[in-house]
Amino acid sequence: MNFFNFQKNIFLGIGIMTGTSCDAIDISLIEIHDIAEPVINLISFQSYKFSALYSEKINEIIAKESKVKEISQLNYYLSQVFAEYIEQFIKDTGIAKSKIDFISVHGQTLWHNPKAEMFLDKYVSSSFQSLNLSALAKLTGLPVVGDFRSGDIALKGQGAPLVPIFDYYLFRNPDAPIIALNLGGIANLTYLPKNADLSDVIAFDCGPANTLIDFYANKFFGQNFDTNGLNARNGKLDNKLLQILLSDEYFELEPPKSTGREKFNYQFIDNALQKLNYKVNELDLMRTLTELTAKSIEISIRKFAEPQSRVIVSGGGSKNLFLMERLKHNLFDSEFVGIEKYGITSQSKESVAFAFLGWLFLNEKNGNIPNATGASHSTILGVLAI
Amino acid sequence: MNFFNFQKNIFLGIGIMTGTSCDAIDISLIEIHDIAEPVINLISFQSYKFSALYSEKINEIIAKESKVKEISQLNYYLSQVFAEYIEQFIKDTGIAKSKIDFISVHGQTLWHNPKAEMFLDKYVSSSFQSLNLSALAKLTGLPVVGDFRSGDIALKGQGAPLVPIFDYYLFRNPDAPIIALNLGGIANLTYLPKNADLSDVIAFDCGPANTLIDFYANKFFGQNFDTNGLNARNGKLDNKLLQILLSDEYFELEPPKSTGREKFNYQFIDNALQKLNYKVNELDLMRTLTELTAKSIEISIRKFAEPQSRVIVSGGGSKNLFLMERLKHNLFDSEFVGIEKYGITSQSKESVAFAFLGWLFLNEKNGNIPNATGASHSTILGVLAI
Repeated sequence: MNFFNFQKNIFLGIGIMTGTSCDAIDISLIEIHDIAEPVINLISFQSYKFSALYSEKINEIIAKESKVKEISQLNYYLSQVFAEYIEQFIKDTGIAKSKIDFISVHGQTLWHNPKAEMFLDKYVSSSFQSLNLSALAKLTGLPVVGDFRSGDIALKGQGAPLVPIFDYYLFRNPDAPIIALNLGGIANLTYLPKNADLSDVIAFDCGPANTLIDFYANKFFGQNFDTNGLNARNGKLDNKLLQILLSDEYFELEPPKSTGREKFNYQFIDNALQKLNYKVNELDLMRTLTELTAKSIEISIRKFAEPQSRVIVSGGGSKNLFLMERLKHNLFDSEFVGIEKYGITSQSKESVAFAFLGWLFLNEKNGNIPNATGASHSTILGVLAI
Repeated sequence: MNFFNFQKNIFLGIGIMTGTSCDAIDISLIEIHDIAEPVINLISFQSYKFSALYSEKINEIIAKESKVKEISQLNYYLSQVFAEYIEQFIKDTGIAKSKIDFISVHGQTLWHNPKAEMFLDKYVSSSFQSLNLSALAKLTGLPVVGDFRSGDIALKGQGAPLVPIFDYYLFRNPDAPIIALNLGGIANLTYLPKNADLSDVIAFDCGPANTLIDFYANKFFGQNFDTNGLNARNGKLDNKLLQILLSDEYFELEPPKSTGREKFNYQFIDNALQKLNYKVNELDLMRTLTELTAKSIEISIRKFAEPQSRVIVSGGGSKNLFLMERLKHNLFDSEFVGIEKYGITSQSKESVAFAFLGWLFLNEKNGNIPNATGASHSTILGVLAI
């Protein structure tokens, strides 16, 4: 049956993203006109830093054994925190709340493993985004759409990446191949061949983008990230370590594929370091981790996409000058442009894309690309709290 | 804005309940006609036993520290398990799946504590029902409504009881006071004064019904429950122990109030037993736990409702002959009738009520009774996966 029957074709939606690095909440307000096809305008974007207390707690819950009680509390705690940031955002933006049609939210990933594992008597793959959608709807007084990954996972997909459908609507080009490259905690790309239709889209997670760099910038220097890539620039590439890291099977895996911090974490690096019979100094490790990101992206593009593309870069990593230098050096045959050319800021892309996914849900349009996620078929993604 | 616009006033909905004792899944199919007000017909009911493996695992996850991974997997595992039982139910009922409008599901409670506790920098109360609604919608191909407790908790309510609004629609009587008493793992009641309107409804959890009896029937005798109350009948009441158990502050607390197995569990009994300077034998403990249920319900009714009511009994505990004898003895001034008089079986009540809550959501009607839950106001309860 048809569910929704809205008597309008302009929607105002808020999109909320908190990435794997869980240091900030990104909030976008977009306007979507739907005439022949959806046209998206970014009206406002803010990124609010989380307190260290919050970030530490999340990392603790991810890393350690947690009680059900803590996870239950965290779901509601995040709804309260998110509601406060949304109120702040609405105030900062100066828009009347009554004009906003919906909130669309990713939630804080605590677990994501699309690889089916035996659990009791069944093979189960799963993803867990902490947040209580109903509580967020009540606290904000606005409808909330969320849990976009589960529907795809239930259909044997990876539940990721979800941004490709947004890339497809926004970037596809009749005359040139396009790669939309996002450098968040994890690097992901969407490859849109010239004049692509939906079944041509290839999209996957390349590997780590900032997550390892951020972790060690914090561990070694107490910095939230490696500003402009300065630490890496002052280090020397350890090629032996790089080769060990790049020998991980993930980089060879055919798309569709997705990954996260449960794989590319401290342990991953530590295992590699232990294979060396010498110590790697701090700056050299920063340099090598930055090359790991730049090289694994290059490998991904040469192997599974088309280097002679226009590469539209977004995400916090696009601010890392040294990383961008290395990327452009490795992919000398690509044309790099910032996402700003398309009316979206680099940092806002994922939150805008999630607002768009909320709009797709409310219009009962499919949100996954089976080619990208591996799902058995295309389906509506999300859950609605009113 | 209005969300739903269904061109019909007859709905077929499936309601699913798995109680705190987590030994079975109850599934009802109901038809709801909405002319002047909703009229409910129970078409089919089945209760399917869970495997011991499943029950043990749930109990392990509740009792012990669990990893995020396990909780994430359990959410999807339950969606798979529930989807299989729903298919079986549809087959057993012989109805065409295409005729069913929605599934409404409670989920498996892993945590419920509406009492606000400090969590990081905020007071948080929370409830956690394991299940992934989106996965269940994809696996069944049917819309799913769930997570009914969170909206109420977000509005400072207890998130329970939720059945009172169903009791109100089904049982209210212009000429007599009514008490709807449900004997599940926990005992709860709805008091509907003569000719009540919604603001007159009083409802709360009385305390344990079967949860402790079942636990010790299993521990002592390897039985899933105390059949007909035979073990209890063969024991002697330990009045000293009973008084210690009844001295718990919960029984004195003014409604609204709700509770669960996180309070009335093995530990609760063990603490009381340790205050005695003698051992209580197995049958005497069964007898005393049965009286704890019967007596705490009596206290609840005399203190917070009206004993000279018609008491409509439902739930598995209504099959415990000895418990019913004790209840009738204690509440000699009440009139007891089985819920079967109202076209619903004793066992099906909660699953029927949850199907009704799903219907309320899809009709954008409020589902909580602030009087019963303590919420700041009445609101739509639930979340929809399509």
